[in-house]
Amino acid sequence: MTWAAEISGAANRIAGHVVRTPALSVDGFGLGFPIEMKLEQLQHTGSFKARGAFNTLLSSDVPQAGLVAASGGNHGAAVAYAARQLGHKARIYVPEMAGPSKIALIERLGADLVVTPGAYANALEAARRYEAETGAMQIHAYDAPGTVAGQGTCALEWQEQGLQADTVLIAVGGGGLIAGALGWFGTTKKIVAVEPETSCALNAAIAAGEPVDVEVAGVAANSLGAKRIGSICFDLAQHALGASVLVADDAICAAQKMLWRERRLLVEPGGATALAALISGAYVPAPGERVAVLVCGGNIAPDPFE
Amino acid sequence: MTWAAEISGAANRIAGHVVRTPALSVDGFGLGFPIEMKLEQLQHTGSFKARGAFNTLLSSDVPQAGLVAASGGNHGAAVAYAARQLGHKARIYVPEMAGPSKIALIERLGADLVVTPGAYANALEAARRYEAETGAMQIHAYDAPGTVAGQGTCALEWQEQGLQADTVLIAVGGGGLIAGALGWFGTTKKIVAVEPETSCALNAAIAAGEPVDVEVAGVAANSLGAKRIGSICFDLAQHALGASVLVADDAICAAQKMLWRERRLLVEPGGATALAALISGAYVPAPGERVAVLVCGGNIAPDPFE
Repeated sequence: MTWAAEISGAANRIAGHVVRTPALSVDGFGLGFPIEMKLEQLQHTGSFKARGAFNTLLSSDVPQAGLVAASGGNHGAAVAYAARQLGHKARIYVPEMAGPSKIALIERLGADLVVTPGAYANALEAARRYEAETGAMQIHAYDAPGTVAGQGTCALEWQEQGLQADTVLIAVGGGGLIAGALGWFGTTKKIVAVEPETSCALNAAIAAGEPVDVEVAGVAANSLGAKRIGSICFDLAQHALGASVLVADDAICAAQKMLWRERRLLVEPGGATALAALISGAYVPAPGERVAVLVCGGNIAPDPFE
Repeated sequence: MTWAAEISGAANRIAGHVVRTPALSVDGFGLGFPIEMKLEQLQHTGSFKARGAFNTLLSSDVPQAGLVAASGGNHGAAVAYAARQLGHKARIYVPEMAGPSKIALIERLGADLVVTPGAYANALEAARRYEAETGAMQIHAYDAPGTVAGQGTCALEWQEQGLQADTVLIAVGGGGLIAGALGWFGTTKKIVAVEPETSCALNAAIAAGEPVDVEVAGVAANSLGAKRIGSICFDLAQHALGASVLVADDAICAAQKMLWRERRLLVEPGGATALAALISGAYVPAPGERVAVLVCGGNIAPDPFE
């Protein structure tokens, strides 16, 4: 089955369970050209992750032991939400670095939550142990076909909404979202991967010719801080990725502030990372090149209502 | 000329100067039915006011002395923005109660800003004196045909975006936005005016049979705190308004928190007031009645990046 067919199937499967998030076109950010944006941070639980979670659950026989996920926060929240909506148990391992806002979000969603010390890799290890011991179903945050096909529905939906851009900038952590976009668009659009300089698993994998472990740090680490790029993403990127660029933490913070100041969009650093590539000049469109930015997450810390 | 024609003309006039703000449909907020929403807080300067400002400027001969406006904040920001974009001078009188976030916003837009003590009425008086002395052009915040026709483009645009609702809930301050919606929809949709209990100029006018002065207070006063409803709004409401309901400040705050927690929309109290009518039960839809909420302003204080 092709990725396009997988993603179309996922879109039919999850319709009604996820928000058809809005797309718009705006001038501004001092760039002198319009940008199409899709506001995927308005998805259930504040990021695109609900798409992959619902697609996986709705295409699986979920065991009695329920679900298990390891997550820097957003995937965990999405699995907790989807599990609750569909009536399953969910155990979520969250690394401490996810921070109190994301941990509180998952708690509010009623999941059985375990906070693990350190970064994402430790949480993933704990989740795998739980899976082996209980028979619970693991939903991988980014490197599983059902997850990638679910995230790909974001690209499909944007195209249905009339996306005009030649080039689409997408932030990359473990690579689930961009893999879905590469699966849907193939080379019909130029897909640009944007990563923080301090968490750049895809960029490092491209340089090495294969997925390699990277150090993870910086302002966007709790959403984009994957230690190693997913193999599905890497394979798709080898064939279809248009460019891989890196941005500094201060560009991410500047983009985050601009999204609020100019457009009243309050997003987390990971959600501002794709825009940061344009603002910083890490990606400079050619004259006449039409660009789009996928805004992927809004779970900012501290929560303004805390 | 009919309001529909005025509003169509305004839409053509301001196209390209304003954002075509997104519309979406969401479940949630514990209500058990979907709500269509238009995210007009994503408009330039964070509220619908840019529509009326551009429509007025683009249909007028602006004098050498430039523009003058009195505003609780959002209208002033919109006039300052539109003036800058079109190359005019602008003097803006802002009541102290607008608060530092809105005052800083207007300062960033480069207007000649005067902060007046107390509430909106004092700022309006000062603006009228300046107008008389200098010949500057006054743009009324809500009670002028050009302003109302401009705000009406928000309703026109929503219809073009496929608005399905039978009933549209709109927050009311001086009445410019709802007047535009009444001008566009007439009685083809049920338009529900939502006001804070503590700032309810339209509700009081309906009760009295004519516009009357009201006291102004509460969490939404700096955007909805008009002392007297506009005469254009009152006349349109007499013919076409579906219902007038009031909400308590705590319902407004609860709606504001829900918009953030459930949907990652950070809005000011006035921007959450229409939703508050559903959450509080001030407006209860009939079975099968499809409802829509216009989210009208996002200039929250304190600014999360201050």
